[in-house]
Amino acid sequence: MAKEMTLLWGSGSPPCWRTMIALEEKNLQGYNQKLLSFEKGEHKSKEVMDINPRGQLPAFKHGDNMLNESYAACMYLESQFKSQGTQLIPESAAEQALMYQRMFEILTLQQKLADVIYYNWRVPEGERHDSALKRNKEALTAELQLWESYLQKMETGSYLAGKKFTMADVVGFPNVAYAFRFGLSPEKFPRLGEYYNLVKDRPSVKASWPPHWLENPKGMDTLKDL
Amino acid sequence: MAKEMTLLWGSGSPPCWRTMIALEEKNLQGYNQKLLSFEKGEHKSKEVMDINPRGQLPAFKHGDNMLNESYAACMYLESQFKSQGTQLIPESAAEQALMYQRMFEILTLQQKLADVIYYNWRVPEGERHDSALKRNKEALTAELQLWESYLQKMETGSYLAGKKFTMADVVGFPNVAYAFRFGLSPEKFPRLGEYYNLVKDRPSVKASWPPHWLENPKGMDTLKDL
Repeated sequence: MAKEMTLLWGSGSPPCWRTMIALEEKNLQGYNQKLLSFEKGEHKSKEVMDINPRGQLPAFKHGDNMLNESYAACMYLESQFKSQGTQLIPESAAEQALMYQRMFEILTLQQKLADVIYYNWRVPEGERHDSALKRNKEALTAELQLWESYLQKMETGSYLAGKKFTMADVVGFPNVAYAFRFGLSPEKFPRLGEYYNLVKDRPSVKASWPPHWLENPKGMDTLKDL
Repeated sequence: MAKEMTLLWGSGSPPCWRTMIALEEKNLQGYNQKLLSFEKGEHKSKEVMDINPRGQLPAFKHGDNMLNESYAACMYLESQFKSQGTQLIPESAAEQALMYQRMFEILTLQQKLADVIYYNWRVPEGERHDSALKRNKEALTAELQLWESYLQKMETGSYLAGKKFTMADVVGFPNVAYAFRFGLSPEKFPRLGEYYNLVKDRPSVKASWPPHWLENPKGMDTLKDL
């Protein structure tokens, strides 16, 4: 199966990373893959555009099926390989409800992280305002505090949606790791720090760890003052 | 089942509307529901916060299960009531892949619509720039053209992910309808216009049509120059 799959990806991108974690969790190692450089603009190459007309990574195909939205790829892989590898969607209604709720709340965390981390990259110089960046940082802090409170209400050692590793973690862990890579303080967000430590050595996560983070373990300090 | 469900919602909000369409499609009429006013700030009331700590609508619960993210509610309802009402997730791998891909691409359309429609509401006066709004409009136009091209490549009378009405339409139609409500020209986007006409009279959609749109059929012209 994995031989019919191709993933074009960029190092460190949470959407790419979550697709790779899903592939690992579903025991789909051995897929064709190619690491591309965002810095060199390789995500706008014909090779990518042929799979993903948006010119974004990941660009993923399974046979003729194109799944470029990372959530779409993850849901498809779980559905098509349901009985293989880790079961990522719990069956009981209560566990499933919490899993879906957290899974989709992660998109808000992702957006608020991007609003701070990519501010200067997205907003042309003449349109930047300290007041806007300050507001984005406050919104991100509130968002991170909400996740901290979710974890506080659960037992120590919990994943994002309970005692089991689920799709909420597949999509969410890369964003949490990204926050720490960009300087988030585990002293100020201790439960998120514990969650990070719980998941970082999981085989699927280690196998897909961003290679440029391994090469250069020191991250940025963009979020250190949150 | 529906008697154990409660939906707090606001009129015209695509996330609320898609949850209501999913409930209709799964034959879950008769749920408890309450229409709240965004203008009066009722989405920040204790009644909402008790279900949804983000103070957003929809706020939805089924028994003790809270599903406030509209995508989460839709996926949960399809999963829990799989054999009831319309099957919203196709089984064949090819159909399912396209359905998931379009379903999650809709989030980009939703964001680009919001970047234009809510620009003045979101950006304080002193931070507004004509250049930013112009760029947002260009990005929205490109996004709408992409959807137009998707529909052009399919047979006339197709839904967003093929010949069947699927979850992609449940989540996507409210955004398409929103674009037309805010003045999008069906002459410039004819396939989107046809799609709108195809779906607008569907029973689940009619039953959940925003009441304030019925009261006041004339929309805005925010998008008429796209």
